[in-house]
Order: sequence, then C-alpha cells, then structure tokens
Amino acid sequence: MAGKKLSIIVFSGTVDKLMPVGILASGAAASGYEVNLFFTFWGLNAISKRGMQAQPQVDKNYEQMGSMMMKRMMEMKFPMWTQLVSEAKEVGEVKVYACSTTMEFFGLKKEDLAEFVDDVVGVATFLDRAEGGTTLFI
Amino acid sequence: MAGKKLSIIVFSGTVDKLMPVGILASGAAASGYEVNLFFTFWGLNAISKRGMQAQPQVDKNYEQMGSMMMKRMMEMKFPMWTQLVSEAKEVGEVKVYACSTTMEFFGLKKEDLAEFVDDVVGVATFLDRAEGGTTLFI
Amino acid sequence: MAGKKLSIIVFSGTVDKLMPVGILASGAAASGYEVNLFFTFWGLNAISKRGMQAQPQVDKNYEQMGSMMMKRMMEMKFPMWTQLVSEAKEVGEVKVYACSTTMEFFGLKKEDLAEFVDDVVGVATFLDRAEGGTTLFI
Repeated sequence: MAGKKLSIIVFSGTVDKLMPVGILASGAAASGYEVNLFFTFWGLNAISKRGMQAQPQVDKNYEQMGSMMMKRMMEMKFPMWTQLVSEAKEVGEVKVYACSTTMEFFGLKKEDLAEFVDDVVGVATFLDRAEGGTTLFI
Repeated sequence: MAGKKLSIIVFSGTVDKLMPVGILASGAAASGYEVNLFFTFWGLNAISKRGMQAQPQVDKNYEQMGSMMMKRMMEMKFPMWTQLVSEAKEVGEVKVYACSTTMEFFGLKKEDLAEFVDDVVGVATFLDRAEGGTTLFI
Repeated sequence: MAGKKLSIIVFSGTVDKLMPVGILASGAAASGYEVNLFFTFWGLNAISKRGMQAQPQVDKNYEQMGSMMMKRMMEMKFPMWTQLVSEAKEVGEVKVYACSTTMEFFGLKKEDLAEFVDDVVGVATFLDRAEGGTTLFI
C-alpha cells in the first residue's frame, strides 16, 4: 500500500501564507507523510536569496492584524517558516522543487535559490510526484 | 467502501473567500459528503466572536466589484456564509475545527469562537481527518 | 483503472493567479489528465466578455514585481492564460464550467462568457466531476 502524501504548490509570497506551508510540511513530515513542495511565482521569489533578504510582508488585506500576529510569534519564539521547512527535511521525506517556468520569468538560476531546494522541475513532473496524494495550492 | 469527503483549510478572512466555504460546505453536505472545516489564521479570526462583529471586508484586489456583489447578494436575500455552515451542520456530517497553533498566536480560547466550532485540534489531527478525500486551501 | 484527473476551482481574477490555471491545465492535458475548470466569483468575472476586455491586474501584494514579470512574459512571447486554456482544450480532455450561483450574483448569461465555456453548473455537479482526482482552489 502506498503511504500518505502531501504536496503543496507554493504560489504566494506573503509571510502569513508561507507560515502554513512550513507548519503543514513540518506537521506532515512528523506524521510520516511524504511531502512535496513546488515553489512557483511569488513563492519562488520568496526563496530566492534576494527575496529571503527582503522584509517579510503580510497580505495587505490583514495588515493591521498582521503586525500583531508577527509580534506574538516573536514573543513565542516561533520558528521562521524557512526553518520549519529545513527541519522537516531532517525529520522526514520532504522534497523541495522550484518551478522551471518561473525561474525563466525571473531570470533565476538554481544557485540563486535557498539551499533547501532539491531540484528544478516543470509542472508535469510535479503533478506526477503529487499524484495519488493530497495537493494544496497556497 | 469509504464515502465521499471534502475538507477545507479555511485560511482567508475576507468575505468573498468565506462565501465559497459556506457554499461548498453546504453543497457537499447536501450531496452526502463528510465535510471537515479547519479554521486557521485569518479564517480563525473571522469566526472569533470579535471578528464576527467586525464589518465584512472584500479582498482589496476586487474592491470595486465587491460592493456590487455584496449588494446583489442582499437583494437576492442570499444567506450569510456562517448561516450556510450552521445549516450544513444540520443537514449532514459536518465538523468544524479551530487550529490550536493560531489560537495561541491570537490568545483565543474556545469560548471566544463561534458556537458551530466542534473542537480545537492541531494540523496533524486535521490531516488525519482529511486523509483520503478532497482537500482545499482557501 | 480510472485515469488521472485534475480539477481547479478558479476563484481568483488577478492575472498572476490565472497564469498558473492556464499552465496547469495545459501541462496536465498534455500529460493525459482529464481536466475540469470551474470558474466562480472573480475568476468567472475574468472570463466574462467585459472582464476579458479590462486591463489585466496583478495582485496588489506583488505590484512592484508584477510589472517586471508581465514585461518578461511579453519579451518571452509567453502565451496569455486564456490561450493556454483554449490550446489545452484542443490537446486533451478539458472541460470548462461556469458557476451558476455566481452567474446569478453578477447577472451574467452564458452568451456573456468566453467561448471556451462548455457548461453552466452548480457546485454539487462540479464536486461530482472532480471526485477521485486532484482538486485545487486557486
């Protein structure tokens, strides 16, 4: 029998939407899920070395609540979402993919991306890896 | 044979994205689906008693169309999304969960939430309940 | 054995989120997936004849990067997302549905929509078509 699998198309680049990516990846990996993350568009920009140096942004719809939530997370010493992804990779079977089409749009090379990226693939390859499991678009 | 199942991670807090949560939950429950809703981040804030008293907000990207759509919904006497969730719970097997991590971020207790919340659970428990069905991130 | 199936609830109306709809539909159709697109809310507005004449908008959260990305896509002569959907329909088994409830909210008729729309259906019918495959909410 095939094991449990969670795949996420990480499209968004605001920190409020990247937090659940880290939390879901880490929770699923700890529960024995195979996890596949496919970073594309603004999500891919967020894991470029340049994007990772930028000030994290909260979705404009939730700006007022956002600063309060970020403050609370720091008080609670809650880990950054990138740290959650890195830790998930140590705990379980977690693969991180970068979208080849977006790399071309942004003119990025693999060495411009976070070190936790395993591979640069196209959408058909990602769909193949995700097949038969739960897939989310975030 | 296992029955049909629809699970939704309710992340967003704008009324335009909460409407489809109500519509999907109610349509799926009426069609005999087991439905699981997991409210987190801005979605959880939207079902806190304080959030429910606030003026509903439409996503800033669609502000102009938003007021027109809200007006049409009132003219049509379309039910509020929270009412759709409550009605879905009467019609079918619908469970509403609140995300424990977000409760901690916001300093919320179960009694601060809408009455249709069944339980406060972590992400691993939710993934377990959702396993084998269709899962959406809204 | 049932074949592979990808279904997308197309809720969003900004061009950055509609691009992946086109890319996913086209990649999946070329890989032999059955594809179902269900346009609702701002996504449905985007495929109304009036919406298709409007200037494409990028999500306000990514405005600065957006203009750069749109420029790159034009330089690369990347096809418009609507063209990707139309081409996907020629290549594979791709069905495009419009949400009946949203049609009513917006006061739209089938002849007001893009020509690639196959049918106007409700949420229960869509869930039925999507059953047993991968379903995304974009």
